[in-house]
Amino acid sequence: MTAVASTLPTGQTFDTALAQGRRAYELDRKHVFHSWSAQAKIDPMTIVAAQGSYVWDGEGNRLLDFSSQMVNTNIGHQHPKVVAAIAEQAATLCTIAPPHVNAARSEAARLIAERTPGDLNRVFFTNGGADAVEHAVRMARLHTGRYKVLSRYRSYHGGTDTAINLTGDPRRWPNDYGTSGAVHFDGPFLYRSAFHAFDEQQECQRALEHLDRLIAMEGPTTIAAIILESVPGTAGIMVPPAGYLAGVREICDRYGIVYIADEVMAGFGRTGEWFAVNHFDVTPDLITFAKGVNSGYVPLGGVAISEAIAATFADRPYPGGLTYSGHPLATAAAVATINAMEDEQIVQNAARIGADVLGPGLRDLAARHPSVGEVRGLGVFWAIELVADPATREPLAPYGGTSAAMNEVVGACKTNGLLPFVNFNRIHAAPPCTVGDDEVREGLAILDTALSVADRHVVH
Amino acid sequence: MTAVASTLPTGQTFDTALAQGRRAYELDRKHVFHSWSAQAKIDPMTIVAAQGSYVWDGEGNRLLDFSSQMVNTNIGHQHPKVVAAIAEQAATLCTIAPPHVNAARSEAARLIAERTPGDLNRVFFTNGGADAVEHAVRMARLHTGRYKVLSRYRSYHGGTDTAINLTGDPRRWPNDYGTSGAVHFDGPFLYRSAFHAFDEQQECQRALEHLDRLIAMEGPTTIAAIILESVPGTAGIMVPPAGYLAGVREICDRYGIVYIADEVMAGFGRTGEWFAVNHFDVTPDLITFAKGVNSGYVPLGGVAISEAIAATFADRPYPGGLTYSGHPLATAAAVATINAMEDEQIVQNAARIGADVLGPGLRDLAARHPSVGEVRGLGVFWAIELVADPATREPLAPYGGTSAAMNEVVGACKTNGLLPFVNFNRIHAAPPCTVGDDEVREGLAILDTALSVADRHVVH
Repeated sequence: MTAVASTLPTGQTFDTALAQGRRAYELDRKHVFHSWSAQAKIDPMTIVAAQGSYVWDGEGNRLLDFSSQMVNTNIGHQHPKVVAAIAEQAATLCTIAPPHVNAARSEAARLIAERTPGDLNRVFFTNGGADAVEHAVRMARLHTGRYKVLSRYRSYHGGTDTAINLTGDPRRWPNDYGTSGAVHFDGPFLYRSAFHAFDEQQECQRALEHLDRLIAMEGPTTIAAIILESVPGTAGIMVPPAGYLAGVREICDRYGIVYIADEVMAGFGRTGEWFAVNHFDVTPDLITFAKGVNSGYVPLGGVAISEAIAATFADRPYPGGLTYSGHPLATAAAVATINAMEDEQIVQNAARIGADVLGPGLRDLAARHPSVGEVRGLGVFWAIELVADPATREPLAPYGGTSAAMNEVVGACKTNGLLPFVNFNRIHAAPPCTVGDDEVREGLAILDTALSVADRHVVH
Repeated sequence: MTAVASTLPTGQTFDTALAQGRRAYELDRKHVFHSWSAQAKIDPMTIVAAQGSYVWDGEGNRLLDFSSQMVNTNIGHQHPKVVAAIAEQAATLCTIAPPHVNAARSEAARLIAERTPGDLNRVFFTNGGADAVEHAVRMARLHTGRYKVLSRYRSYHGGTDTAINLTGDPRRWPNDYGTSGAVHFDGPFLYRSAFHAFDEQQECQRALEHLDRLIAMEGPTTIAAIILESVPGTAGIMVPPAGYLAGVREICDRYGIVYIADEVMAGFGRTGEWFAVNHFDVTPDLITFAKGVNSGYVPLGGVAISEAIAATFADRPYPGGLTYSGHPLATAAAVATINAMEDEQIVQNAARIGADVLGPGLRDLAARHPSVGEVRGLGVFWAIELVADPATREPLAPYGGTSAAMNEVVGACKTNGLLPFVNFNRIHAAPPCTVGDDEVREGLAILDTALSVADRHVVH
């Protein structure tokens, strides 16, 4: 365990925070229904404070946050400029219905449109990533007059009905009634290639041929959209090989299919660019975003829309909306976040950390720990793929599940002061984009210790 | 026009606010994609400030807000206690991932659970009403092992895929691909009875017989849930006759169907009770809420869950979630809102206003204006049904559309300083629950003038 904090960054005394945390835990177990969980089988950690790259748990332990709270707080915890902007906007105008113009929404739309590639100049705001995907799919269906939507296996697109059915990870299974027009395909993932490929170039070429063939079988004129996380997130941070997204763009153009880039997790600096598609010089027709747009300080998501799709709804009403579309408080937080990220060169920091500190450090760990099958990533967005057998690449926990070995590794991270993001057999290193070199080195040292625990489970 | 304000409640000078408003309008037209609209055909009003029951437009005109911004700001605009709570929580902890316990969510869950009827003691938080409905339907489907969901015509349940297909108003039409398991039925609405009924009691009885018959035809064992706005909102504020909701509860019990009460618009004081079902002594299995829970100061929604349904997910994981479930800032705003509503007797004020001022005032208008076919409502939740012909009840605008006459009436409201909520041939009077007697009288006087405009379109 790390040392107990004597004071918290909020100025609270340690005892007050502890007492509040205990009360919060008690009420939580009585009244809070938790997502993705069997309610009687969880024992959730209490968080009593957070600052920069750190959080404090209910016992006052400080943990280095390599999860960014579901890869959300790109700007770090409690950034003073965003906190101040929220207080200022709250004092001015908290909420207003979406038909009315409000200054915060207008300015946020401008700042986002300036950062999106190509002519994605219009923004429809939602509450989060899932409804961003719902609306993007609706726009694509009405724009094309077609219904089916293609998405890849090993992907996540959100928790509402359409979004969860487009998802290509096991969270879809209990929600799949087979009725949503969702069709899944395999994307490129060389380490666990679906295409028997030997290098990235072959993986790319075969993945594109597979997609093209699937479209021919499904019927090109039945397909409204292809939705793709530019870098799949929770599913494993598989950075696409050079040429893949450009190939998808070309296929979409050939068949009149709308290309939706889901950048809910990868966008707004996470990969060291404002949008992950920028690494690949590709302009999608729609970009869905959330999380990093304001680091989740206030719930916000949205869709950036090309001129061609916006034109479809110039004279014909767009049939979708929500009470909080372009919420003043949420968009004011986005304005402050984007401006602070620009002023403080936070996206550039994420790129530099990835290239110079986190990436090399993780590759060094991979070289030294037999339990590490592969590390991969960009910016502050990295996956450590843990295997029980480096030769067969058997994962340390099964697809869709966990294992005693993984629990032990994650436990070792937490005991030593690191909060990682975990999915099946993977540990993701996803600190805030603001993370410092020393913090990354602190995290790498803890991972080094935890991976020694993983190594003990490797079959030699 | 009302007089131009010399200063705004934010302390901004008039000139500054005007200039900001003009800039906001310009950027809005360039970059903001609007909900439910043909983008090239709208000329949105700018809102530069709001306080209590009033908003100020881009010309500095003060308007009495009888819309509550989509029936949202139950506590009025810029309530100082909620504004202060947002600033305080922002300074402490803006966001944290939902697996972790946070004090604001725990306390909000307690306050909500204490106010829900029966044993709806657990709360799952979402971002708004639509995803609350999505999750409620998912819970019902997994709890029952059935798929179909029944909802009434003349209803609204939200903008995401499942929610919009359950909706029973024309917003569903462009989103209906016939695939969602949604089945619609007629609810009670005596003024436009689907059952040829002559009084409320007969309407109630026949509506229940209709529902029972429809369930027999669809197959009781195929139906997971019935979802009902306790008082349908945008669709027309049709307060159900005595006995109807109890009858629905009995039908659900008979067939093992989950009863979902959608209280997104009607809940949290709007009808003069914490929940509209309280008027009818009925306990649903799930209640969906949003809007009034924190008056939309920060986006928030949720589902209150019965012990029986929560027990279904005690040992089996609930397969749904979202990054902002139980967001600290949003739930802190809910805590402050509920406490302020309690301390200041705001729900009681809504009940009193409805019984003593707004209700009687609207009935007086109905008696004097031939264009008013009916007024109906509860608390601060009232509909004025406008007709071109009182004998045939021909609406002043067609179902799903508008008309020159309606535009003229709405224009007269705004010119005289009132912002109403409008749907097809109806004007809704839905001021904040905090509205004062004099403000209601001011609104009634403006409505009196506007209804004289409507009267000119009545065929005598």
